[in-house]
Amino acid sequence: MGEFELIRQYFAAASCARTGAGVVLGIGDDCALLNPPSGNLVAVSTDTLVAGVHFPEVCDPALLGQRALGVSASDLAAMGASPLGFTLAISLPQAEADWLQRFAAGLNQMAEQCALPLIGGDTTCGPLSLTLSVLGHVPPHQALQRSGACVGDLLCVSGPLGDGAGALPLVLNRSLGDSETERYLLARYWAPQPQLGLGVALRGRATAALDISDGLLADCGHIAAASQVCLVIDQEQIPYSEALQRIYRPEQALQYALSGGDDYQLAFTLPPAQLPVLQAEGWPIQAIGWVEVGQGVQLQTATGHRITPAVRGYDHFERGS
Amino acid sequence: MGEFELIRQYFAAASCARTGAGVVLGIGDDCALLNPPSGNLVAVSTDTLVAGVHFPEVCDPALLGQRALGVSASDLAAMGASPLGFTLAISLPQAEADWLQRFAAGLNQMAEQCALPLIGGDTTCGPLSLTLSVLGHVPPHQALQRSGACVGDLLCVSGPLGDGAGALPLVLNRSLGDSETERYLLARYWAPQPQLGLGVALRGRATAALDISDGLLADCGHIAAASQVCLVIDQEQIPYSEALQRIYRPEQALQYALSGGDDYQLAFTLPPAQLPVLQAEGWPIQAIGWVEVGQGVQLQTATGHRITPAVRGYDHFERGS
Repeated sequence: MGEFELIRQYFAAASCARTGAGVVLGIGDDCALLNPPSGNLVAVSTDTLVAGVHFPEVCDPALLGQRALGVSASDLAAMGASPLGFTLAISLPQAEADWLQRFAAGLNQMAEQCALPLIGGDTTCGPLSLTLSVLGHVPPHQALQRSGACVGDLLCVSGPLGDGAGALPLVLNRSLGDSETERYLLARYWAPQPQLGLGVALRGRATAALDISDGLLADCGHIAAASQVCLVIDQEQIPYSEALQRIYRPEQALQYALSGGDDYQLAFTLPPAQLPVLQAEGWPIQAIGWVEVGQGVQLQTATGHRITPAVRGYDHFERGS
Repeated sequence: MGEFELIRQYFAAASCARTGAGVVLGIGDDCALLNPPSGNLVAVSTDTLVAGVHFPEVCDPALLGQRALGVSASDLAAMGASPLGFTLAISLPQAEADWLQRFAAGLNQMAEQCALPLIGGDTTCGPLSLTLSVLGHVPPHQALQRSGACVGDLLCVSGPLGDGAGALPLVLNRSLGDSETERYLLARYWAPQPQLGLGVALRGRATAALDISDGLLADCGHIAAASQVCLVIDQEQIPYSEALQRIYRPEQALQYALSGGDDYQLAFTLPPAQLPVLQAEGWPIQAIGWVEVGQGVQLQTATGHRITPAVRGYDHFERGS
């Protein structure tokens, strides 16, 4: 079977995910054609996931498909962008019908959930890796950048932290989950939920935002650097899931939240008056700190002391993997 | 050095390529932000190039940078799209400063030439491969698709064919070119010239178009299939470069033009009255056939016979490489 046939056969459903009016032309020509609302900006992000680096060499292809698109779509949420579509470049050692079918099913499920249709891509023969480019649109001057945090703003997050890192031992053990608790954590790793709705709700309200992929400290460091301010995190206010607290000691849960990464919650800064308004709209967001004059990130411990934590984000070449 | 530093340091120039007003926000946030002209469609294409499959494992990184972007930008030309920007996902076995510097220099040169700035991407550790997503814009209803060829149209190409395949033996021998002729062919392989200007000129004039990457027969087959017509190629009218004719016998040159691929010229169909108009504007285009009722591709030989050639486009999985 040729590569064109492969694409057509297995990814047909993702390319038909409910599209709104955004896709004028999908897979099959030299380019796809998108029709963003007139005057809106187009948001674009590209992410690569490599087997053995970003996900286990041996894993359920359906879960991989879900996760790959969830992780990528999270960048649109972080920008406050509405979904338009995505392209997928997939490198595969061989074209196995069963693997492709299951991968496409997982991909399709997340595409449907995010209203983000597959609009094009490429297939090549090689070690397993995935590169996704996601596209969205956002009204001018309303995109959520990293650079707008203001002194006096609150620092907020969209939900519990540390689950991604807490799930990793289970993922690496290829566990299917022996309990409700474990299955919850595995789902948080394999099916991250891009906060696309919240991203849109934060337009014109949040002063800075990003999605937590490298860990709270590293990612807050990005906002601090881009905004030229100091972000103070109150350790006592970091939210955890029940599952994480059931399996791990508090110090371990804290460590996962601060440096674990892979959470794909949004972290954002907000004028204090906006917090109750957004909460009243039903968004389960929570303040975990505030913005001060200065630079970098500070952690306020349970005893009220301030420390400047060592930030250690994920870096492929530095890890040398 | 961290991956973020790497990107910033080596790709800074490409991200500053003359942008027009298209790029609102470049590298460094969760997404890049583009500002296409209000009401225009956004064209997107994703291509992957893998070492040992799409280019030799050992090659000049500057030439690789040029070629990777040239090949990708050619898809925008084929759609009649004006350039907005591109993302680059690069997988590298290790981060070598010298290699990166030379690769970025070649990439930057093509970015400058195409007015296509680097707006984002990802770096990962792994076997050398490149995935580029190119973005452009085109007025509604003016994109050049594959599906519009009409009976009675002329089949045209934008320049000489077969050079890409003719260069391949030199490329594989790692020749630097012993003569003007060889250097011309090598340049045609390593620095394909995306026909972006012609693509824009063909808006509203060509009825169907694509870029010749798989070989004339396979690519004309795509137009024929999408348009539900028969494309007849007059073998005698296929244009060749002087260089190709100097090195290869006529039968070999013909074979390269028909099935070699890698030419990145445009093939398009045109109402006959448009040909002299475009030629008068200075576009060096040439009619090589016509559109008839029927399906598929037919070749009219030098003796005036019609044959239905076996089409063999490039297919990674079928080649099993």
